[in-house]
Amino acid sequence: MSERCSLVLCCGSLLTLSLLTQMLVVHKYGGTSMGSIERIKSVAERVAKWHRAGHKVVVVPSAMSGETNRLLGLAKEVSANADPRELDQIASTGEQVSVGLLAIALQSLGVKSRSYTGWQAGIKTDSAFTKARISEINGDMLLKALDGGEVPIVTGFQGIDPDGNITTLGRGGSDTQAVAVAAAIKADECLIYTDVDAIYTTDPRVEPDAKPLKVISFEEMFELASLGSKVLQIRSVEFAGKYKVPTRVLSSFTDADIPIEVEAKSGTLITFEEDEKMEQAVVSGIAFNRDEAKITIRGVPDQPGVAYKIIGPVGDANVDIDMIVQNIGEKGTTDFSFTVHRNEFRKAMDVLNNQVKGAIGAKEVVGDDKVCKVSIVGIGMRSHVGIAAKMFKALADENINIQMITTSEIKTSVLVDDKYMELAVRALHRAFELDKVGA
Amino acid sequence: MSERCSLVLCCGSLLTLSLLTQMLVVHKYGGTSMGSIERIKSVAERVAKWHRAGHKVVVVPSAMSGETNRLLGLAKEVSANADPRELDQIASTGEQVSVGLLAIALQSLGVKSRSYTGWQAGIKTDSAFTKARISEINGDMLLKALDGGEVPIVTGFQGIDPDGNITTLGRGGSDTQAVAVAAAIKADECLIYTDVDAIYTTDPRVEPDAKPLKVISFEEMFELASLGSKVLQIRSVEFAGKYKVPTRVLSSFTDADIPIEVEAKSGTLITFEEDEKMEQAVVSGIAFNRDEAKITIRGVPDQPGVAYKIIGPVGDANVDIDMIVQNIGEKGTTDFSFTVHRNEFRKAMDVLNNQVKGAIGAKEVVGDDKVCKVSIVGIGMRSHVGIAAKMFKALADENINIQMITTSEIKTSVLVDDKYMELAVRALHRAFELDKVGA
Repeated sequence: MSERCSLVLCCGSLLTLSLLTQMLVVHKYGGTSMGSIERIKSVAERVAKWHRAGHKVVVVPSAMSGETNRLLGLAKEVSANADPRELDQIASTGEQVSVGLLAIALQSLGVKSRSYTGWQAGIKTDSAFTKARISEINGDMLLKALDGGEVPIVTGFQGIDPDGNITTLGRGGSDTQAVAVAAAIKADECLIYTDVDAIYTTDPRVEPDAKPLKVISFEEMFELASLGSKVLQIRSVEFAGKYKVPTRVLSSFTDADIPIEVEAKSGTLITFEEDEKMEQAVVSGIAFNRDEAKITIRGVPDQPGVAYKIIGPVGDANVDIDMIVQNIGEKGTTDFSFTVHRNEFRKAMDVLNNQVKGAIGAKEVVGDDKVCKVSIVGIGMRSHVGIAAKMFKALADENINIQMITTSEIKTSVLVDDKYMELAVRALHRAFELDKVGA
Repeated sequence: MSERCSLVLCCGSLLTLSLLTQMLVVHKYGGTSMGSIERIKSVAERVAKWHRAGHKVVVVPSAMSGETNRLLGLAKEVSANADPRELDQIASTGEQVSVGLLAIALQSLGVKSRSYTGWQAGIKTDSAFTKARISEINGDMLLKALDGGEVPIVTGFQGIDPDGNITTLGRGGSDTQAVAVAAAIKADECLIYTDVDAIYTTDPRVEPDAKPLKVISFEEMFELASLGSKVLQIRSVEFAGKYKVPTRVLSSFTDADIPIEVEAKSGTLITFEEDEKMEQAVVSGIAFNRDEAKITIRGVPDQPGVAYKIIGPVGDANVDIDMIVQNIGEKGTTDFSFTVHRNEFRKAMDVLNNQVKGAIGAKEVVGDDKVCKVSIVGIGMRSHVGIAAKMFKALADENINIQMITTSEIKTSVLVDDKYMELAVRALHRAFELDKVGA
């Protein structure tokens, strides 16, 4: 049997030793990593290296980059309102091609390998076409293939519903599939190979001193994904959390022949263990989102049910709402503010002006689409007081005005003027000493 | 229930009447007919027309033209010796995309439609990847879909083997699949829509007076397919014969809105009925094949087993042999001649010179790759004497020397010098009065 190995928590010498034991892992490769025949061959070399070292590997590759868009583009040319079942029938072929190509590439390296579609691998989903949810994965078939010395390649992003229809999990579903496969076979680790080399304390394009995190808690990763980090799809993080699958984000653009010992501890591990030895950072990272727009309704009569009367029509117009803040106002009225995606700002403003303002007797509707959200995320916030205060002080020191605040157990978000975004991120990065992570 | 309707055998007034009864038909569309989104929409319009007229239609489309080659090209880039199982996993996606697109196109015309992969439609095959044979089709699911007012779209060219692997039927397998589906649901007719508008008495590019045949017998069609006619894949003709599926070859490039009455009697019907009223042509068509090369071994000792000693090594070298003729020679020796595909001429010559000639004590090996085969095909030959003689006379009148002759019950083939091919085809077309067919 393989043995669980929480790499980054071990000291160096233990690390090398533990790696000599056989691991059961899932490798997931994104569309960019599968972007050309050359890259597919390079993925095959990386997988072959793990296989030859005695590890058991299941691979979940995405479609070649651009392929899913090409396929859905064809469908859109036929009809703008295509049947979601047929879209899934079509879009699922992108992954089917890439698993076949990767199996061939592995075989030509002398590795026994075989490709499986979602339904062949026993991945069952509900019938919500184009955004199906995995209901069950029977890992027996994959485990049997592994016992036979095979490297099974499983399509990402898809499964089969109770009526035998092909379903897809929606964009980013390959991450979720990989984590779900890892859960089904009780893998020691799910390795998500991607075009970034780690989760960073913040976006290095904004803060050059951003540092890669060796380890991040599941809860923090979940908040980061919710805040719009594109590295991992939020549902894959949910799945990892639900089934406690240790999941690692690492780069597929390192040389395929770097030693496994090095590769296996690279990137960022999303962990479920609260290790004593792990020095718990109070704040792990700074997230930000430029896609926000703020809307305020002033002079709203302060009565029960008024929040619903404002938010209801906006939701009916298919506009998602992010932050919501209601302040106590004066003379029996209140101000009600919320944020929406910047693309939906005009739509939301129209709904409020035409359907809501008069109906509830509000004074005015004002909006601003030049705002952004900056958040600090850290599991240490649970046990440390004064973190929010430190955040507000850091921003005040830079004369950055805070327009809205929301908090959760391990996250504090503020809305600030768009033009201060970089400044705010850098100030917070420095204030929480994230430039010293890993030093 | 639908009612069998042998259209071309009816007179005009009966024809219109019988078409008013509901028919159960399979439509098959080739890659060219599915070559672009515009063409797919045009196919949908044609199918919708049949559906709206009250007929039950199952559609079997090919992959979009060029798509199967593109997919196999990708696999070839990865490895020249790709695993056939993986090739099928990859190549089968071409049809999966086109069934989805066609279902969407039908839905956007207001027709209830749904796509099915080979395995979803219950098409079982053996495990001979890339050239699997259909072992069973359970038509229940398709019949149920039809009863629900649906137009089921089934992938051509593929099925599932007993272990749940995706298989493909090999090139041209969509024709076979269509005929097999028609057999499984006991369709009244299988309509093969293609880029030619009928089976002709001979190739119109060689003989401008070639005439389209309204009807051809299964046996004749089988011989034509064996002789290299590209219109129908030989295995689809075999299948049609085995299950007695009336199969019609017709054009998909007529206007989609021509009346069903006209469309349903267009093209050529391959029939199993020997109708009294059908004026039986003695010879139905002239076939020819330019890909032949002739090899003769002279002075072969006339002993039992010598044919095997010659043909055996050639077959071992994977060279297919077509015509074989052995003449009585003089002084206890014989001449042995056969034909091979022109591309394999050099390979076969090498085998004979290096492995066979010395071993059997033959005098010499001579070859000629400037030959072609011309054949007359006709079910009437069974009951008419002197047909071969008439053929030989027609060729003699044109001073065309016959190099080899082979015959079957309904076919006579001759090998002649390449340069006489057009002349021979035209002389035979005239001699058997094929220019007067349908007049």
